[in-house]
Amino acid sequence: MSIIAIVYHSGYGHTAKQAEAVAAGARAAGGTVTLLRVEELVDADAPGWATLDGADAIIFGAPTYMGSASAPFMAFKDATSKRWMTGAWKDKIAAGFTNSGSMSGDKVNTLLGFIVLAMQLGMIWVGQELMPGNNSSHGSPDDLNRLGFALGAAAQSNVDAGPDVAPPASGLRTAEHFGGRVAAVTARFAKSKVA
Amino acid sequence: MSIIAIVYHSGYGHTAKQAEAVAAGARAAGGTVTLLRVEELVDADAPGWATLDGADAIIFGAPTYMGSASAPFMAFKDATSKRWMTGAWKDKIAAGFTNSGSMSGDKVNTLLGFIVLAMQLGMIWVGQELMPGNNSSHGSPDDLNRLGFALGAAAQSNVDAGPDVAPPASGLRTAEHFGGRVAAVTARFAKSKVA
Amino acid sequence: MSIIAIVYHSGYGHTAKQAEAVAAGARAAGGTVTLLRVEELVDADAPGWATLDGADAIIFGAPTYMGSASAPFMAFKDATSKRWMTGAWKDKIAAGFTNSGSMSGDKVNTLLGFIVLAMQLGMIWVGQELMPGNNSSHGSPDDLNRLGFALGAAAQSNVDAGPDVAPPASGLRTAEHFGGRVAAVTARFAKSKVA
Amino acid sequence: MSIIAIVYHSGYGHTAKQAEAVAAGARAAGGTVTLLRVEELVDADAPGWATLDGADAIIFGAPTYMGSASAPFMAFKDATSKRWMTGAWKDKIAAGFTNSGSMSGDKVNTLLGFIVLAMQLGMIWVGQELMPGNNSSHGSPDDLNRLGFALGAAAQSNVDAGPDVAPPASGLRTAEHFGGRVAAVTARFAKSKVA
Repeated sequence: MSIIAIVYHSGYGHTAKQAEAVAAGARAAGGTVTLLRVEELVDADAPGWATLDGADAIIFGAPTYMGSASAPFMAFKDATSKRWMTGAWKDKIAAGFTNSGSMSGDKVNTLLGFIVLAMQLGMIWVGQELMPGNNSSHGSPDDLNRLGFALGAAAQSNVDAGPDVAPPASGLRTAEHFGGRVAAVTARFAKSKVA
Repeated sequence: MSIIAIVYHSGYGHTAKQAEAVAAGARAAGGTVTLLRVEELVDADAPGWATLDGADAIIFGAPTYMGSASAPFMAFKDATSKRWMTGAWKDKIAAGFTNSGSMSGDKVNTLLGFIVLAMQLGMIWVGQELMPGNNSSHGSPDDLNRLGFALGAAAQSNVDAGPDVAPPASGLRTAEHFGGRVAAVTARFAKSKVA
Repeated sequence: MSIIAIVYHSGYGHTAKQAEAVAAGARAAGGTVTLLRVEELVDADAPGWATLDGADAIIFGAPTYMGSASAPFMAFKDATSKRWMTGAWKDKIAAGFTNSGSMSGDKVNTLLGFIVLAMQLGMIWVGQELMPGNNSSHGSPDDLNRLGFALGAAAQSNVDAGPDVAPPASGLRTAEHFGGRVAAVTARFAKSKVA
Repeated sequence: MSIIAIVYHSGYGHTAKQAEAVAAGARAAGGTVTLLRVEELVDADAPGWATLDGADAIIFGAPTYMGSASAPFMAFKDATSKRWMTGAWKDKIAAGFTNSGSMSGDKVNTLLGFIVLAMQLGMIWVGQELMPGNNSSHGSPDDLNRLGFALGAAAQSNVDAGPDVAPPASGLRTAEHFGGRVAAVTARFAKSKVA
């Protein structure tokens, strides 16, 4: 029902884990999902660009480094200017996720940057509809959306933990839920294209 | 096909002119449009809230004062927390516009604030798909999107010009175009709800 | 050595606790501190405005409501336009803090809004120099800067906890540290005015 | 009196022109200025890093590509993490400038990204104190700050104009004025270090 591409950078493997969780959630909601690393898109003729061109939704992912998306993702950002010029991604669904060592840090700024990029490309932004978790005396770090994000999905990985154990389960479940939401909204919107 | 509410604040009438242009564009694209001033929504029981609850899309509008949306709009923002708690506006389309005296100023920050609000409410954000105008030797201040915005629609009004003459025609035509785009996306999305 | 004004809004008392902690830290670092509630500044002739005019540094504080500073703070923001017109606050030090129920939420956006306001007024922004806390296997929610903010000081208060117990001690110690930093930078800068 | 480093990326030469204007203004205000291209800082042992380490102020510059700073600047951003870990740039003055084809575009977002980076590094941000130009019936595109920016200096270059003619004189004069302001604030702050 919905064709979804996830394009991401991962420096040490944590954001890759998050990307896989987003993909799993999108697949469970009926989406056909392709995961693309930004490294696969360095060449303007790389086949990954056709995958992005054919998708109903593109989900951006990157770790937050020094307060915004990592430089390899930013190289992909610059390269999307060819799609901006042709309007090729207009009206596609867009969404995003990020991981960093801090609970908050400047992950909000990374997600705002993804939104600005999506709007330049004429895309339509879907955030996270989950209520905040871990924000009351009954809350726990195991809650969905334990960090309380709305712009997209966010995860936290301890700086001394490898991607085998971080982000923790709650971060991955939050990413999975987010993938499901994006797939559901995309399916609705893709259906309207046919109708 | 699409029910659209425009909720806005206007201090001196310029943003009201912009709101009317957005409304005209949305109507021309087949939308059923209601214009609401934030002053009509101060009372939690005001009928305008039901209008917002029943809309497929809500478009936010405010002048940029000291770098972000005007305080009366911000009072409306705080009051939407009741819809956040119930999730009543989840999956509605959201969009926004702003006016100020400067060509750029911090209007981008006002639009980012609208987006953050929309995401808190679980809404889906539609920006402006127009290419920038007035950005080449062939450009003119009469161009559509002469200020080059993507997050939403922006207008500039000279600080010594009344709402009878400002924003200029290009700003109003840009707003009108924007209303049409939001109505078109909303119609697609609303149709999928029925199908 | 440094005259510091803290201007803040607090809806339920949590941000007031944070404001008092910022004040305590600034005083411990040698600052002369005045706390002002935005409610004291509604009248353009209120004496609090002279306090702000006479300060070397102004620290903004507000809870994050629906993704940005609370509306009462925003009314103060609009009212600063008189200082913008005269340039009266040019070259004063500015800083900010915020509290909300979520670990991250959109507190980053609130702090960005404070920065935009400060820049409109020609002020100079001082953030938080603390490294992130609670971001490794040796970390704890009791760490200074447990949420990992850089733009200013942030605290989290459980939504079912009164201001007698929230924000927790780590949030208040972080605020206190932040007050000390702002006072120290302000003292250096104020000294240069005299020299 | 003040040692200033300008670190910038320029894709086609327009931002380089802006950087030179910032440098000229800073020199005229008594600053000792070094211009560094981000390409000179790719190697972690490049001598430019010592220049940055020894500066009282670092001014960031980049074109706005797809809504944020260009990817080569973002590679520099990621590389500053070594200074973040040691706190080496704490309390230095920071400022920024950007150029793009649009009057506004998302240049505000580029400047916000610079600010977030500076705050991560514990730096102190200085914006532009100029009132907006070209915002009344008496205004003109030749005005200083014709685009109305506060977060830093912004210029617009027509997309079909080479760096020999763009940004226009007003954009370069605005950059020059900005360099002077940053130098003046830095001198005050550097003096206090000695005293």
